[in-house]
Amino acid sequence: MSVSLIVLAAGKGTRMNSDLPKVLHLLGAAPLLHHALQGAQALDPEKIVVVAGHGAQAVEKAARAFDDSITVVLQTEQLGTGHAVAQAASQLANATGDVIVLYGDTPFVRLETLQAMLDARADHAVVVLGFEAADPGRYGRLITSGDSLDRIVEFKDATDAERAITLCNSGVICAEAGVLFDLVAQIGNQNAAAEYYLTDIIALARAAGLSAGVVICDQSETLGINTRAELSQAEALFQTRMRAEAMDNGVTLTDPATTYFALDTVIGRDTTIAPNVVFGPRVTIESGAEIRAFCHLEGCHISRGAVVGPFARLRPGAELAEDVHVGNFVEIKNTVLDEGVKVGHLTYLGDAHVGEHTNIGAGTITCNFDGVSKHHTEIGPRVFIGSNTMLVAPVTVGRDAMTGSGSVITSDVPAEALALGRAKQVNKPGLAVKLFDMYKSAKAKCQKEVQ
Amino acid sequence: MSVSLIVLAAGKGTRMNSDLPKVLHLLGAAPLLHHALQGAQALDPEKIVVVAGHGAQAVEKAARAFDDSITVVLQTEQLGTGHAVAQAASQLANATGDVIVLYGDTPFVRLETLQAMLDARADHAVVVLGFEAADPGRYGRLITSGDSLDRIVEFKDATDAERAITLCNSGVICAEAGVLFDLVAQIGNQNAAAEYYLTDIIALARAAGLSAGVVICDQSETLGINTRAELSQAEALFQTRMRAEAMDNGVTLTDPATTYFALDTVIGRDTTIAPNVVFGPRVTIESGAEIRAFCHLEGCHISRGAVVGPFARLRPGAELAEDVHVGNFVEIKNTVLDEGVKVGHLTYLGDAHVGEHTNIGAGTITCNFDGVSKHHTEIGPRVFIGSNTMLVAPVTVGRDAMTGSGSVITSDVPAEALALGRAKQVNKPGLAVKLFDMYKSAKAKCQKEVQ
Amino acid sequence: MSVSLIVLAAGKGTRMNSDLPKVLHLLGAAPLLHHALQGAQALDPEKIVVVAGHGAQAVEKAARAFDDSITVVLQTEQLGTGHAVAQAASQLANATGDVIVLYGDTPFVRLETLQAMLDARADHAVVVLGFEAADPGRYGRLITSGDSLDRIVEFKDATDAERAITLCNSGVICAEAGVLFDLVAQIGNQNAAAEYYLTDIIALARAAGLSAGVVICDQSETLGINTRAELSQAEALFQTRMRAEAMDNGVTLTDPATTYFALDTVIGRDTTIAPNVVFGPRVTIESGAEIRAFCHLEGCHISRGAVVGPFARLRPGAELAEDVHVGNFVEIKNTVLDEGVKVGHLTYLGDAHVGEHTNIGAGTITCNFDGVSKHHTEIGPRVFIGSNTMLVAPVTVGRDAMTGSGSVITSDVPAEALALGRAKQVNKPGLAVKLFDMYKSAKAKCQKEVQ
Repeated sequence: MSVSLIVLAAGKGTRMNSDLPKVLHLLGAAPLLHHALQGAQALDPEKIVVVAGHGAQAVEKAARAFDDSITVVLQTEQLGTGHAVAQAASQLANATGDVIVLYGDTPFVRLETLQAMLDARADHAVVVLGFEAADPGRYGRLITSGDSLDRIVEFKDATDAERAITLCNSGVICAEAGVLFDLVAQIGNQNAAAEYYLTDIIALARAAGLSAGVVICDQSETLGINTRAELSQAEALFQTRMRAEAMDNGVTLTDPATTYFALDTVIGRDTTIAPNVVFGPRVTIESGAEIRAFCHLEGCHISRGAVVGPFARLRPGAELAEDVHVGNFVEIKNTVLDEGVKVGHLTYLGDAHVGEHTNIGAGTITCNFDGVSKHHTEIGPRVFIGSNTMLVAPVTVGRDAMTGSGSVITSDVPAEALALGRAKQVNKPGLAVKLFDMYKSAKAKCQKEVQ
Repeated sequence: MSVSLIVLAAGKGTRMNSDLPKVLHLLGAAPLLHHALQGAQALDPEKIVVVAGHGAQAVEKAARAFDDSITVVLQTEQLGTGHAVAQAASQLANATGDVIVLYGDTPFVRLETLQAMLDARADHAVVVLGFEAADPGRYGRLITSGDSLDRIVEFKDATDAERAITLCNSGVICAEAGVLFDLVAQIGNQNAAAEYYLTDIIALARAAGLSAGVVICDQSETLGINTRAELSQAEALFQTRMRAEAMDNGVTLTDPATTYFALDTVIGRDTTIAPNVVFGPRVTIESGAEIRAFCHLEGCHISRGAVVGPFARLRPGAELAEDVHVGNFVEIKNTVLDEGVKVGHLTYLGDAHVGEHTNIGAGTITCNFDGVSKHHTEIGPRVFIGSNTMLVAPVTVGRDAMTGSGSVITSDVPAEALALGRAKQVNKPGLAVKLFDMYKSAKAKCQKEVQ
Repeated sequence: MSVSLIVLAAGKGTRMNSDLPKVLHLLGAAPLLHHALQGAQALDPEKIVVVAGHGAQAVEKAARAFDDSITVVLQTEQLGTGHAVAQAASQLANATGDVIVLYGDTPFVRLETLQAMLDARADHAVVVLGFEAADPGRYGRLITSGDSLDRIVEFKDATDAERAITLCNSGVICAEAGVLFDLVAQIGNQNAAAEYYLTDIIALARAAGLSAGVVICDQSETLGINTRAELSQAEALFQTRMRAEAMDNGVTLTDPATTYFALDTVIGRDTTIAPNVVFGPRVTIESGAEIRAFCHLEGCHISRGAVVGPFARLRPGAELAEDVHVGNFVEIKNTVLDEGVKVGHLTYLGDAHVGEHTNIGAGTITCNFDGVSKHHTEIGPRVFIGSNTMLVAPVTVGRDAMTGSGSVITSDVPAEALALGRAKQVNKPGLAVKLFDMYKSAKAKCQKEVQ
C-alpha cells in the first residue's frame, strides 16, 4: 500500500537562539530536515508534504534540494501540531494510503521503525510511535490497555499514577489519510495555550470507535533538537554511528572521534583514515585508498590506491583516479586527475583535467579566474609541470610536454615541447652585502627619526 | 568598601617538572596567573599585590601584562603561605578595606564566590573559602560550630572524627587589612616543616576574640594545579565551560570538543565553528560569520558574513570586514581587509591594507621583509591581483588596477593600470622529450657509477 | 639464562574485514607485530621466531624491519595454536633456555610481566599468563590448586562451577625449549574444529608429572585485537599511556586527546605540544621546543628552542637545529636547517642544507625533482632568499648572498652576491579597465550563446 509523509518544519526553534529556521541547522553536513526525510525515503512515499512556517522560503529550498517533487505548504501562524497537519490536508486530499506525520527536528527515526508502524496499521486505525524513557520527565504518557492505546495524557494533566508510566509519546503518528484528516478537523483549541494538539486525535479516534496502537522504538530514535547543545549531542550520536558502521565495513579509523562524516559519505574496505579528516557532502572513496591526517573533502571521488594529504583539500568536482597522489597544502576543485597523477605540494588546481602519470610541480597554480569568468586548463598525459608554473586558462599543455619552473604559461604548449617563460638569472657580485648595509642604515635613520 | 588582593605566585611547582614558574603555564592560552586575576578583576580592587618567588622576573612581567598597576613583591625564600602574605604587608599598610588572599595556581574561583566572602565579612572578622569535597583526602578540614569557624585542622593532625568531616579548606581567606596583617605577624613556624602557615590565623583570630566564618563554593572552583596532567584536566574544564557558554549564546560548534577557546575569545550569535579551530588570545568574531575546519586564529577581528578557512591562519592584526573570504593555506598578519575582499588560496598577506571588493589571486605574497625591516603594502579597492603576484613592499597598487600572474611588483601601480612583470613564453618543440632522455641517461650513468 | 620467543602471526583476522594480515594493521604508527616484539625486546632474546601464514611475505618483511635477525617460519595451513608453535620447533632445536610464546595481535604485554613468567619457571616446568577478567565471557578458565595450575578448561567444555571462575587464560606460555616441543608434539586434534590447541600442553604436562604455574597480569595487557573497532580502542589505550608518560616527563600537552604518538616518539622536558599534532615513526624532540597546532611530523629531529607550526609538515630527514623556526604551510623533507634558520610561510624544502641564520622567504621552493632524479640544494649561512624564489637543483647559494623575489635560480650564486632572475615591471595605463570590460563582454556573449 502506498504511503505519504507530512513533515512538520514550521517551528522557529527559539531556544536555538538563531535567525536560521531550526530544521536547517546542520547535522552531518546536511540540514536536520534532510535526515528526517532520508529516514523515510526508502518507503518510496507517494507524496511528501513539508509544512513550513518560520523561514519558509529557505525551508522550501532545502526541501526541494533533497527531492524536487516535495510539496511545501505554509503554516502562517504557529497554532500547534494539529493545525500544522491540517495545512497539508488539501495536498493529500487524493492520497489513497497511509500518512505518517514526522518532525523536521527529529532526525533519527529509522526506516525499520516506520515500517513497523505501517505493519501495525493492520490492527489499528491510528498508530503512535512511543518509547520507554529512562527519565520520562515532562513527556506526554501513553495510556495503554493490552496492545491498544487508550489515550495520550500530557504531563501537566497527568495523575501521579500516570506520571509513573515510562512509555512516552514521540509525536510520530500514522493513519489512513482520510481518517487522519477527519480526526484532525475535529481537534479543538480549548486549552491554556489555545493550540491545536495533534495528540488529541487518539481520544477522538477512540470516541469514534476506532482502535489505536503503539509501536515502541529506542529512545535515541526520537531525540528532538531544541538547543545548540542538543544539536552538538545529536552530531556526536550521528558520528558515533557512522564511525562504527565504517569500521564494520573494513575501514580503519585511527581515531574515530576525529573523523567527521556527512550524511552521504561512502568509503570502501581497507581504506585508512588518519586523525582529523572532515567529510562534507557527496564524498565517495573506493577501497584501498589512504586519507592522511588533516584533510578536508567535499563533493569528490577518490579511487583505489590513491593517497591524499596530509593537509589536502578536495573541493566539489575533484575526481582522483587510481593511484593518484595529492599531497600537502594542495587544493583541487572541479578537476579530474587521471591515473597516477602526482600533485605533491602547495598547489591549486581548479577547472582542469590532468592526463595520466603527469607530475605537477610544487607551487603550481591554474589561473582559472580572470576577474570575471572561470576558464579550463587541459594538461595531457606524462607531462612534467615545473615548480611554480602559472597556467593562465584557457590553456592546453600537450602530452609529454614540460614547463620550466617559474614559467607563466599563457599560450598552448604543443606535445613534447618545453615551454619556458622566465627571465635569465643575473648574479651581481657583492650587491647583497651592499643592500643589507643600505637597509640597515635606512632602519637606523628611521628609528632615529621616531625618537 | 574597597578591596585589595594578594595573589600568591612564588611557588616553583616541582611536580610540573618544568623550568617555567608554575603560575606561568598556560590555560586557555593565558598564564594561570591571569585566570586568578581575572576572576577578581570585576571587584575593581584598590590594589593588587602579587607575591613572586621562583622566576620572579617572568612572573612580574606576566602580572604587568595583565594590569600595569599591579605591585609585585618578592618572597626570596619560600617559607610558607603565611610568610608569603607577610611580604605584601608594607605595600598594603595604607589599605583601607578588606584583603582577599588568592593563589596564582587556582584559576577557577568565581566572582560571585569572592563577593559572597566580602558579604560574609559583615558577620565575621575573618572569612575562609571552603568546599564540600567528594573525596576529602589530605585536605585541611574546617571545624565549625553553627555558622562560625572554630579552626582549620591539617589532615595529619586530625582525629578520626575530624577526618570524617568533608568540609575542606581552599586556602582563600578574606579579612580587613589591619586585622589580616596583625594576625599574620603572630604566625609561628613551630612545625615539622618550619613553615609559616596562613591557616594558623583562624586559631589566632579566635584566641583574640575575633569571629571567623566560612563561605562554601563548588569544589571545581578551588581546583589547584600541581602537575601537567592536572593542567590538562583544568584546560578541559575551562574549555567545557567556554564551549557551553558559546552554544548558549547561539554559536554552533559542530564538535565542541575540538574548539579551543582562549580566556578572552568573543563570538557572536549565529556564527558557526567547524571542527578543529584553535583560538589564541584576543580574537573577536561578530555574528553570522563562518569559521571552517582547521583554522588557527590569534589577535584578529572577523566581521559579520565573513568566511574563513578551511586551513586558514589569522595572526595578530588581521582585521576582516564584512563578507570577506579567506580560504585555504592563507596567512594574514597585521593586515586590514575591507568589505568583500577575497583571498582564496595559498597566500601570505602581511603589513597590508586591501580595499573593498579586491580579489587576491592564488599564490600572492606581500614581500614585506627585506631582511632588516618590515614594509607596508597598500592595495586599493576593486583591484585584481593576478595569481602568484609578488608585492615587494613598500608598494601601492591603485584602485581598479590589475597585475598579471607571476609578476614581481616593485614599483607603484597607478589606478586602472595593468602591471606586468614577466618574461615572454617560448615553446621549444621536442625539447621536453630530449631533456627527459638526457635526465634518464644521467641517472643511469650515476647508478652505474654507484655500483 | 637465555630466552627465545615464538610470536604467532599467521592468522587472517577475518573479522578485520581486510586484505592486510591482521598483525600488520597499525597501532601508534607501527604494525601490531612490532608492539608484541618490542614488549619482549629488553629480554635480549637469543632467537626470535615469527610464525607467519596469511600474507606471509608482508609479515616477514615487517618482522625483518623490526629486527633483521628474526627468523620467519611458514605455517601453510592454520591448524591451531599448537600446530603453529610446532612450526618453530626445528628453528629452536638448539635453543638452550626458555621459550615464551607470544601473539602478534596482542600488543600490550609488559616486560615486567614476561620477566615474572621467567622467574616463575624456577618453580614450574610450564608457566601460563592469566588475568582476572571483569567479565570472563567465553575465555578459557584456569583451574588452580594453591599456586599450581591443574588445567585450562575451554568455556564450552566448562561446568557451571568452572564458568564461575574469573581467572582466565591469555594464551601466553613459557617453558624450557625441550619441554615445550615435547609437549607440543603430543597435542592431538580430536575436537570439533580438528585443531591443535596449545592450551592442551598443561594437561599433558601434568599427566607427565610436570608442574604448571600461573602469573597474573592486568587484563589490559592481554587485550587482543580482532576487529577495526577493537583496533581503535587499542589505539586509544596506547595513546592514553603515551600521553600520560609524556606529561609525567614534563611535556605540556594542551589537549592530550589530540596528540598522536608513534611507538618510538621521544619528547624532551618543557616542550609544549598544542592541539592536533600527529607523530609518525622516528620523531625526536629536544627540551624546550614548541610544536604549535596542526603539525604532522615524521622521521625528524627538532632541537631545543625550535618553534614548529601551526600547519607545518616535517617529513623524514628533516633536522632542525636550535632556535629554528618553521612556520605555516611549510614542508621540509630530507633537509638540514642549521641554527636560527627561519622558514616562515608557504615553502617546500626538499633535499637541501641551509646554513645558520638564513632566512627563507615565503613561497620558496627547492625544485629538487627533474622528472627523473632528485637533486641537492645547498644554501649558505646568513643568506636572504627572497619570496617565491625557485631553486632549481642541483644549485648552491653562497654565504651572505641574496636572491630577489620571484627569481628562478638555475646556476650557483657566489657568496655576498645578489641573484636576480625576473622581468622588469611595466605599467600599462588604463589597460586593467579595458581588460575587465573585454572579459565582461566575452562573458555576456558566452551566456547569450548558451541560452
